[in-house]
Amino acid sequence: MNKGFMLACDGSNGAGKTTVISGIETHLKQRGIEVVMTREPGGTKISEKIREIILDPSTPEMTEMAELMLFAAARAQHVREKIIPALEQGKVVISDRFDAATFSFQHYARGLDLNTITTINRLALGDFKADMNLILDLDPQEGLKRVKSRGEGLDRLEDEQQQFLQRAREGYLLQAKNDPTRFTVIDASQSKSTVLAQSIELVDKLIDQHIKLSSRV
Amino acid sequence: MNKGFMLACDGSNGAGKTTVISGIETHLKQRGIEVVMTREPGGTKISEKIREIILDPSTPEMTEMAELMLFAAARAQHVREKIIPALEQGKVVISDRFDAATFSFQHYARGLDLNTITTINRLALGDFKADMNLILDLDPQEGLKRVKSRGEGLDRLEDEQQQFLQRAREGYLLQAKNDPTRFTVIDASQSKSTVLAQSIELVDKLIDQHIKLSSRV
Repeated sequence: MNKGFMLACDGSNGAGKTTVISGIETHLKQRGIEVVMTREPGGTKISEKIREIILDPSTPEMTEMAELMLFAAARAQHVREKIIPALEQGKVVISDRFDAATFSFQHYARGLDLNTITTINRLALGDFKADMNLILDLDPQEGLKRVKSRGEGLDRLEDEQQQFLQRAREGYLLQAKNDPTRFTVIDASQSKSTVLAQSIELVDKLIDQHIKLSSRV
Repeated sequence: MNKGFMLACDGSNGAGKTTVISGIETHLKQRGIEVVMTREPGGTKISEKIREIILDPSTPEMTEMAELMLFAAARAQHVREKIIPALEQGKVVISDRFDAATFSFQHYARGLDLNTITTINRLALGDFKADMNLILDLDPQEGLKRVKSRGEGLDRLEDEQQQFLQRAREGYLLQAKNDPTRFTVIDASQSKSTVLAQSIELVDKLIDQHIKLSSRV
């Protein structure tokens, strides 16, 4: 168990991750809890530079293996430099995407071998795991509609066909099904305020449990 | 066997890699052979961007695992996008450094677990191997003297202590000892012209053999 608490928030683009994450941050700070906000790929100077390479729309020639290894490199740096030190200080870390995304996009959607991804991810993470993976589940068609209505451009990974995004969604749901103690799925087709309220209720409960358990150690 | 011929040139900084590589290039072109020059980390647009991150002296916080994965990402892209296609066209590819450097620097010098490096490297390379690894062997103390006399700045990896470079050197020699059909060590403390002449003689012989074998297939 981590001393602090690590919450990974994942889900389709347009599912409302940004709103939920910043809402949880505000709420936890109001409770007097120290919160570190971060994201993947990224979160450190080195990892953000790697992010730029991964998302660069001018390099469609990137191979699947190179992409997978770039994600892993960014994650290895992120976990050791930023996440673990923050957790050791008892802080709550909230990451916009984490390793569940790699399994969803690279394995379930793109078809990369599961063993390969598991091996590389284990090397990147060591023994580290998020305490909670919050999955905001939304039909990708609906998510894309929302993203477009905000007038945002699509990056290389977002600009993929619907089938791909549908498989990624199923990947999140499968991971949640296989590891129900570490994953929670929230129906992101509900109103923003409902999704946020449900997320905060869940996080509050988990952090309270965590504090109780930690204080026994 | 590759259809073309892949020569990886490795060795300590200051051992004369640049001179040797460009001398071999000139020689082979005079023979009418198509040559593709490349380097690691780098060689493609994506891999060169990764190179910038790896060698950036402003980020000493880079973890060993992130570094290893960045090298692997750059290599995965390099091999699939540039090296294999050139070899399939029957060209000779000459790379300034290749995977032997990862074993020397990350395993022998820095102490990263050999299995980890082997695993990641195999994922990066697939079944691909260089046909020949030419190792220019030089005492690192002498190499550093040469680099300094050229007035060049040191990058993050070069700016390491002598012991580290000594272990990397031993790593090259051990790899050569373990795989004598694929490695050749040349004594780079000899005069530049001697080192180049020996290198060209060797490459000529290997390429002639290779052409003979290829024509039988």
